[in-house]
Amino acid sequence: MDEHCPVARSLACVGDRWSMLILRDVQRGMTRFDQLRANLGVAPNILSGRLASLTAEGLLEKRQYSERPPRQEYVLTEAGRDFIPILTAIAGWGYKHRGEGPISRLVDEATGEAVQPLVIDSANGAPIGTRPLRLVQPD
Amino acid sequence: MDEHCPVARSLACVGDRWSMLILRDVQRGMTRFDQLRANLGVAPNILSGRLASLTAEGLLEKRQYSERPPRQEYVLTEAGRDFIPILTAIAGWGYKHRGEGPISRLVDEATGEAVQPLVIDSANGAPIGTRPLRLVQPD
Repeated sequence: MDEHCPVARSLACVGDRWSMLILRDVQRGMTRFDQLRANLGVAPNILSGRLASLTAEGLLEKRQYSERPPRQEYVLTEAGRDFIPILTAIAGWGYKHRGEGPISRLVDEATGEAVQPLVIDSANGAPIGTRPLRLVQPD
Repeated sequence: MDEHCPVARSLACVGDRWSMLILRDVQRGMTRFDQLRANLGVAPNILSGRLASLTAEGLLEKRQYSERPPRQEYVLTEAGRDFIPILTAIAGWGYKHRGEGPISRLVDEATGEAVQPLVIDSANGAPIGTRPLRLVQPD
């Protein structure tokens, strides 16, 4: 049944902590293997595996930024960029439910105000969770 | 550094595929161990571990629904319910980027329209990704 579920399909590509943290870091400009390894403190073989998987799944792509010596970096594709707002929503959950002690914050650059992520149904503007939804299985 | 990151903090509680799929299923009324096991097709020891972890982290709580024989089910706490819109946003990513073939859809019960999840900054209404954000580290 899960083959029809868009949540399960998404999580099959990106459903683990390292993959999501890699997307977060690439978005923040840590595009090279060594930068990611240093920031995440992750074992090199795990990082290699997740980068290969995110690239195969089309969320990242490799780009050569130096010819001599040949050096590559990872950049977000459209699919990868589309996942970033989900990470922002996950940050919002963390502020609310794991917000104790010093914590980093996203602010709107123009206003300086703290970002308050909210998932809405853009068809009607209502926050998700405020109107009854129904799951429709395919025929 | 990641100790200050709300994304990393959240993913430390719920950052794996099974945990997120369990929250999805409990939200859909599959509150008992056997229902979850059957729907997810997950090994019992993995399911037990994830349920224990989600309960310890405060996203689920156990409730006894029968005294004789003693039977327990899992229900979402406030923290668990607050994660559901994130799953809806993840579904939105799946519709867009993994939407080929038969796929289940969430519709608004009242209007019958397909839900179109969008993460906005509720401080100003702008979709996340449309305005520059800045990450502020704690002092």
